[in-house]
Amino acid sequence: MRVIFNGKAKQMRALWMEGKTLVMIDQLALPGSLKLVKCKTLESVAAAIEDMTVRGAPAIGAAAAYGMAIGWKDGKDKAAARLRKTRPTARDLFRAIEYMLASKGDPFASAERYATDVADACKRIGEFGLPLIPKKARILTHCNAGALATVDYGTALAPIRAAHAAKRGIFVFADETRPRLQGMALTSWELLNEGIPHAIIADNAAGHFMRRGEIDLVITGADRITLNGDAANKIGTYEKAVVAKENGIPFYVAAPLTTFDFSLKTGNEIPIEERPESEVLELGGIRVAPKGARARNPAFDVTPAKYITAFITENGVVRPRDVKKLAGRAQR
Amino acid sequence: MRVIFNGKAKQMRALWMEGKTLVMIDQLALPGSLKLVKCKTLESVAAAIEDMTVRGAPAIGAAAAYGMAIGWKDGKDKAAARLRKTRPTARDLFRAIEYMLASKGDPFASAERYATDVADACKRIGEFGLPLIPKKARILTHCNAGALATVDYGTALAPIRAAHAAKRGIFVFADETRPRLQGMALTSWELLNEGIPHAIIADNAAGHFMRRGEIDLVITGADRITLNGDAANKIGTYEKAVVAKENGIPFYVAAPLTTFDFSLKTGNEIPIEERPESEVLELGGIRVAPKGARARNPAFDVTPAKYITAFITENGVVRPRDVKKLAGRAQR
Repeated sequence: MRVIFNGKAKQMRALWMEGKTLVMIDQLALPGSLKLVKCKTLESVAAAIEDMTVRGAPAIGAAAAYGMAIGWKDGKDKAAARLRKTRPTARDLFRAIEYMLASKGDPFASAERYATDVADACKRIGEFGLPLIPKKARILTHCNAGALATVDYGTALAPIRAAHAAKRGIFVFADETRPRLQGMALTSWELLNEGIPHAIIADNAAGHFMRRGEIDLVITGADRITLNGDAANKIGTYEKAVVAKENGIPFYVAAPLTTFDFSLKTGNEIPIEERPESEVLELGGIRVAPKGARARNPAFDVTPAKYITAFITENGVVRPRDVKKLAGRAQR
Repeated sequence: MRVIFNGKAKQMRALWMEGKTLVMIDQLALPGSLKLVKCKTLESVAAAIEDMTVRGAPAIGAAAAYGMAIGWKDGKDKAAARLRKTRPTARDLFRAIEYMLASKGDPFASAERYATDVADACKRIGEFGLPLIPKKARILTHCNAGALATVDYGTALAPIRAAHAAKRGIFVFADETRPRLQGMALTSWELLNEGIPHAIIADNAAGHFMRRGEIDLVITGADRITLNGDAANKIGTYEKAVVAKENGIPFYVAAPLTTFDFSLKTGNEIPIEERPESEVLELGGIRVAPKGARARNPAFDVTPAKYITAFITENGVVRPRDVKKLAGRAQR
């Protein structure tokens, strides 16, 4: 991704190795400042996944792969056990751990191959998504499914980057994405760095703009996609998908094949992580809710297949009903 | 409404007269602290409306009526002119001023009658809404349509209060309602004071709970309702209504008859106020968005009649298609 760093444009990934140290952009410090966090131990990688210094399913996968490499010498099974406990919903985390456990040779080389495969897949998602974006399209996206979440390019942001590079004159509406505001803090930051025109909106406003004909298509990422074409993604995605369908607006989910979990038949089998109440009740560490008030804070929701126009993958555009065929191919 | 003040439960309105002084709950200080603001002059009442110490269309109307009474001795037309300049969009404000100008006798008695009429209408909304709430109902509400906004009882919160008083064992999901967080700051505060079990949720989470069968009905307020049964209300209401319908969940709009604007045929004629970008880009005065980012901030949206199960008014429950009949009656 393009990042303006000390006044200069640089190409940068969300995380990378320097020798045996994992370096990652501190996503908790964005957009206020661009800070790099260095992890030299398995425990520090696991903690960075848990506290969301790194977030986004594919980036978490890459972090886990690097974490496995770093922890390898003290026992790969111990490393796997520690990393599996970090975040429950993201499919990529578990896949990256399995990938590493099955790998031969230098674990650092394996982890690097894993991360580069993720970045390459995202680049191809951009290429396959580009034809779906008309000239002057006004695109809604939710949360951050950008380069920060995916090592590079992004999933939802990959076709958006490609359309901008192809000078399609697009405009992006970025849902702020409460409670953690990844849309406001991260997606807007990536779009600003690329020079893509956009507006941040309260999550509540997306439906209003859809109804008024001010949004032409929606692209989001996904955390897990099941055999029947249901997709789990950041809380709020489901509402946007329902309202998009109601208004005849195409709703695309951009995700690498690693996000597909063919072991699950439907989205109802996906465990939904409930995160701390404080994420809702506080803003920037300051309590806004009345004393004694409680919150519910599901981090993800499930969008049933019927609301999804298509998945944009690194192998092409796939209708929800054809996800089963991908599974068949994956098993062969 | 029930308010715990210095450890004791008290019945309190959002604003009331003590002698010739208007006392109001400072809604800007909530939920952090319960502060009372005293207004002895027309100018201080006008300022309290302008800076949103008092907010919510019916409560603003009552404040204006009291303000007229306070300013009466220095010229009622001068008082009317000053108050008309405070919040140009609130319909009740103008209605209250006209009510006072047309009144005979003691202006303080007239203002008291106006405020009591508003509170009584809300109480009846609660009575008519009560039969719509089953035992153990889990109710979603959006923004604050409570006693703070309406002198007493509230509109959306009136049936909720009534159901709690009738020991129906209800549970409320309160949308936090970005960007201004009236759900988190005000609705939750009212519910806590009444002892009504509830959880604050990010606006994004409402759809998730609806899809999972954890919400039985939705009740919101309204800012304006048109002849065809469309309703303008706080931004985000439209999304909740669409998702409720998709899940077969009744969606009720509670509003006094003064909210119906029979001069407008459909919601498309309602002007939608866009408020400052800073409400989205900043939280508690601190910028969260990246430097250079822009926002769009529509304050209201329009929910078409087809998503509304019924309106709950002080004269009974009205289907959207029957709003026209109310207009006929109002004209006779």
